[in-house]
Amino acid sequence: MNREAFRKISYGLYVVSSIQDGKFNGQIANSMFQVTSEPSTIAVSIAKENLTHAYIASSRVFSVSILAEDTPMTFIGLFGFKSGRDTDKFKNLKHRIGKTGAPIVLDHAVAYLEAKVVQELECGSHTIFVGEVADYDSLGNEAPMTYSYYHTVRKGKAPKTAPTYEREEPRATAAASRYVCTLCGYVYDPALGDPESGVPAGRAFEDLPADWTCPVCGAGKDQFEPEQ
Amino acid sequence: MNREAFRKISYGLYVVSSIQDGKFNGQIANSMFQVTSEPSTIAVSIAKENLTHAYIASSRVFSVSILAEDTPMTFIGLFGFKSGRDTDKFKNLKHRIGKTGAPIVLDHAVAYLEAKVVQELECGSHTIFVGEVADYDSLGNEAPMTYSYYHTVRKGKAPKTAPTYEREEPRATAAASRYVCTLCGYVYDPALGDPESGVPAGRAFEDLPADWTCPVCGAGKDQFEPEQ
Repeated sequence: MNREAFRKISYGLYVVSSIQDGKFNGQIANSMFQVTSEPSTIAVSIAKENLTHAYIASSRVFSVSILAEDTPMTFIGLFGFKSGRDTDKFKNLKHRIGKTGAPIVLDHAVAYLEAKVVQELECGSHTIFVGEVADYDSLGNEAPMTYSYYHTVRKGKAPKTAPTYEREEPRATAAASRYVCTLCGYVYDPALGDPESGVPAGRAFEDLPADWTCPVCGAGKDQFEPEQ
Repeated sequence: MNREAFRKISYGLYVVSSIQDGKFNGQIANSMFQVTSEPSTIAVSIAKENLTHAYIASSRVFSVSILAEDTPMTFIGLFGFKSGRDTDKFKNLKHRIGKTGAPIVLDHAVAYLEAKVVQELECGSHTIFVGEVADYDSLGNEAPMTYSYYHTVRKGKAPKTAPTYEREEPRATAAASRYVCTLCGYVYDPALGDPESGVPAGRAFEDLPADWTCPVCGAGKDQFEPEQ
């Protein structure tokens, strides 16, 4: 039983957004698929502990923004590793209100769909919401981000509430110069640097500026530990 | 509203298999995702009119074989465009019985998961079956087939019972030398030939051997029409 099997399931990377009492929230999701073609319905698996879950359960509408391959890690960090309870994720963000009343994230989106919840299924820690698609559009010709690309090329991780979250097993062989973010699992690899933040390849973790923060979740340097 | 939006959702390509009264059947699916991580559950959307639906509804078990990128179109045609009511799809096929009792297709699979149905949700033409994963394994290091690759590189289509099926709109500009399979939508393009069947690029449809068949669904030449 090799857990690699789960990592061979193909996914995209999406922002699922909703509204409650005039407030917007959204989160990263990968578990999304089309259920039927006539009428067009889509399903998403959302963690019950996430704020977006509460918003969808209340307003019965949601949108899905399909992210582009070149979406910055900081953007994914905002929607994937921060809670709308602490941050207004829609501040300074290009978005609009859709036909259903759900907010639609437009920044870094190659397409969107918005839907009204027609059915839901409680599955332990998550709920599958099935929505009938009310509107959709394509926003550009860039390649959509796949979960495989996010993992292998961008070195991204799944947050703890993701359906695809995996507990990290301690490694037998340590790479002393790599540092792991204890909040989101991002690994700072000096061989790669952090080009999105202007840190060139080859810079040691110890030589990063004091105000450098995790490109995924925004944690400070003090939240990092040497990789075990 | 550009339907291209739906085509930007990322999927893999899977064979979902089940058993009833000692008989095996399986079908191509792309709508599959992980629902929860503890316990590991997965969901599939299966058309009610498909034989595999009846088998899963009866035996409450199913397996998912994750197909490799180089899976032959004839194999996809067998599982995607032919019914187990007419054909024993498991004849001459490498497979084994899993822990749940479900058959697992091993040919062209890079990994598999098998599951016991714990919940289901009727959604019009389809049912979402949620299964708790009982066993899984990785079978190779080849790249998994993505739906995007199947469509854009392999020129594959969705069968009519797929959640992602789209009615083809007639084209305004005809390309007289291309022929379309009226059963599965496969397009014979003389510029590409049909290398899997030994037909080199550059051969006109009219010059194909009389016993040439559609590489996807096995239809005869007489089932083809000039592309409109």
